[in-house]
Amino acid sequence: RSTLRLGMIPADGIGKEVLPAAQRVLEALGSAIPRVEFVPLLAGWEEFNKNGKALPEATIETLKIECDAAMFGSVSSPSHKVPGYSSPIVALRKHLDLYANIRPVKSVQGVDGKPVDMVIVRENTECLYIKKEEIHDNADGSKVAYATRQITSYASSRIGRMAYELALRRQAEREAGASSSVHHSQPKVTIVHKSNVLSVTDGLFRETVRAVSQEDKYKSVKTEEQLVDSMVYRMFREPEIFDVSVAPNLYGDIISDGAAALVGSLGVVPSVNAGDNFVMGEPVHGSAPDIEGKGIANPIASIRSAALLLSHLGYTDAAAKIDTAVDNVLREGKYRTPDLHGKSTTEEVTNAILKAL
Amino acid sequence: RSTLRLGMIPADGIGKEVLPAAQRVLEALGSAIPRVEFVPLLAGWEEFNKNGKALPEATIETLKIECDAAMFGSVSSPSHKVPGYSSPIVALRKHLDLYANIRPVKSVQGVDGKPVDMVIVRENTECLYIKKEEIHDNADGSKVAYATRQITSYASSRIGRMAYELALRRQAEREAGASSSVHHSQPKVTIVHKSNVLSVTDGLFRETVRAVSQEDKYKSVKTEEQLVDSMVYRMFREPEIFDVSVAPNLYGDIISDGAAALVGSLGVVPSVNAGDNFVMGEPVHGSAPDIEGKGIANPIASIRSAALLLSHLGYTDAAAKIDTAVDNVLREGKYRTPDLHGKSTTEEVTNAILKAL
Ligand SMILES: CC(C)[C@H](C(=O)O)[C@@H](O)C(=O)O
Ligand SMILES: CC(C)[C@H](C(=O)O)[C@@H](O)C(=O)O
Repeated sequence: RSTLRLGMIPADGIGKEVLPAAQRVLEALGSAIPRVEFVPLLAGWEEFNKNGKALPEATIETLKIECDAAMFGSVSSPSHKVPGYSSPIVALRKHLDLYANIRPVKSVQGVDGKPVDMVIVRENTECLYIKKEEIHDNADGSKVAYATRQITSYASSRIGRMAYELALRRQAEREAGASSSVHHSQPKVTIVHKSNVLSVTDGLFRETVRAVSQEDKYKSVKTEEQLVDSMVYRMFREPEIFDVSVAPNLYGDIISDGAAALVGSLGVVPSVNAGDNFVMGEPVHGSAPDIEGKGIANPIASIRSAALLLSHLGYTDAAAKIDTAVDNVLREGKYRTPDLHGKSTTEEVTNAILKAL
Repeated sequence: RSTLRLGMIPADGIGKEVLPAAQRVLEALGSAIPRVEFVPLLAGWEEFNKNGKALPEATIETLKIECDAAMFGSVSSPSHKVPGYSSPIVALRKHLDLYANIRPVKSVQGVDGKPVDMVIVRENTECLYIKKEEIHDNADGSKVAYATRQITSYASSRIGRMAYELALRRQAEREAGASSSVHHSQPKVTIVHKSNVLSVTDGLFRETVRAVSQEDKYKSVKTEEQLVDSMVYRMFREPEIFDVSVAPNLYGDIISDGAAALVGSLGVVPSVNAGDNFVMGEPVHGSAPDIEGKGIANPIASIRSAALLLSHLGYTDAAAKIDTAVDNVLREGKYRTPDLHGKSTTEEVTNAILKAL
């Protein structure tokens, strides 16, 4: 294609500070990628308070009809239940059927933190995120609430396939000389579940992913399992043993924040929400109300999310260029935002990355 | 009372190696506690394979009728769904209404690991652990499974009260000179939830615990909140900020394994399952099939669980005696099991603790 139309949804808080940084980096790539047209779009808690909709119809429609891909910033959540409000990021994933949330967590050689080079492949459409909840009053005035957790073989199978494909792709990249702070001798997928308690739902997830693992083309990939509680423990004790991990939605949410702690900051961890026809980059961090407006948010998670998005669209050279620039800036250590114990601003870090490109 | 009747349920794997260690320590306390009568009881995956019941009626009845308290070892889980099998520890918590799982995680001054002195108060009777699950075949041969997550104001309120009481008790202990590797200036309760997605169920948990926090007697206790994903992240970045954390069942399960990683090993983290009329000590670790039978399991989690149990029954001096002996052995560093990078056996560590008593 000659133009890439990219929906830009900064949403709330520092999302509005880091998405422009990613845009500057994309703009600096020049002829390495097609011309990018940035399409600014609204969503979020602030938008809800202004116009009554956390995710305006126009945003969904524009993404579906006019855009090739998108970048999402971060959302603030009200601290109490607000009628009519519902998380726009959860809704977007559903509307665009972005069924996989891919979250690579990789330490940079020579930078503090443990050696880790893993990817979390999080199912993005079901589990407790279907938000089927109800509440009832008992006769004695007490209350009982229920939420439904849904696991289907359909969703488990496609996320499983995504995980095994990724394991093969990572192995191919390693064989082609991609650098890593960890030595993975064989591609591996770790299935994360809690089937010792949820034998039916997590049992279905586990069996369905196991069935995928049996397919001929994946026979070089090793399959392991971790109960989600044990996963969090092992991730901190021996993060280097993990390659690709695949998990139902909520476990994936939790373990990816845990993995982020291993590399020093949520501020450096990117993700893409990927479907078969659309992809949306999204830093893993939240809207960080404590530092909002101070100009010191770490732009790296967003910039890496842009790289991940490009790589997903097939522009792997351009993606590698961004990643190398980011790694170099991290390794040099001169420009770091406060989450990485530095004193630089969002702009200074972005400038350094632009220079290193 | 003149005799303490203690049900002993080693169950599977290393549970059978570490429970006897706890028994030896209790026996060594002499007149510091009443005479203890140990009542051996059956449960577990191995028992299921032998006699068809993971939790025999006789075990439940004996606990209810004859015992004052109990100690539980650990259970193995089948790696696939087995008809008729259901986790005996989950069932025991329910049968005896042990609604609170109290899991203190504390680093020993001078021993590796981060400074941490926190307690996780995990709701133990509901959430996804009610195990209401179903599965259906779709017309196209695919499958859909559902699990129900239950949160009640009743269970949330009593677990909330347990958390605030504990926060006050810990503060009183600190004022009385209890040593800690962390300085907590004020008692604090952190409510862990995910109400940005589960606004109804986690909303009910959050509001109910908040209502408890408003009671006059708790007004010296600070209340904070963490979304469960952020909790895992923060726990690793700044574990010293946490005092008491209260969480629904599954989140509590996950974050307590995470917290265990902070103090070097699951092998040192104790818990009690507590109800209004019964208490059961239980190491947080699992049955560890990889080291079963080798005699190298860490007995400390079980020994500390026995101390926690005694403290819960009001024998605080005896409990403190055990804890001090354990801390001294850890600090000395001469006898450590392999999970703590040592070379000692279960027996050597137990002997060292007995000597330090
Ligand atoms: C904001 C929230 C709804 C979201 C989630 O739970 O998916 C966030 O934690 C994330 O990981 O993207
Ligand atoms: C064995 C398992 C059912 C149990 C749980 O999830 O409660 C365990 O992980 C625990 O933490 O005690």
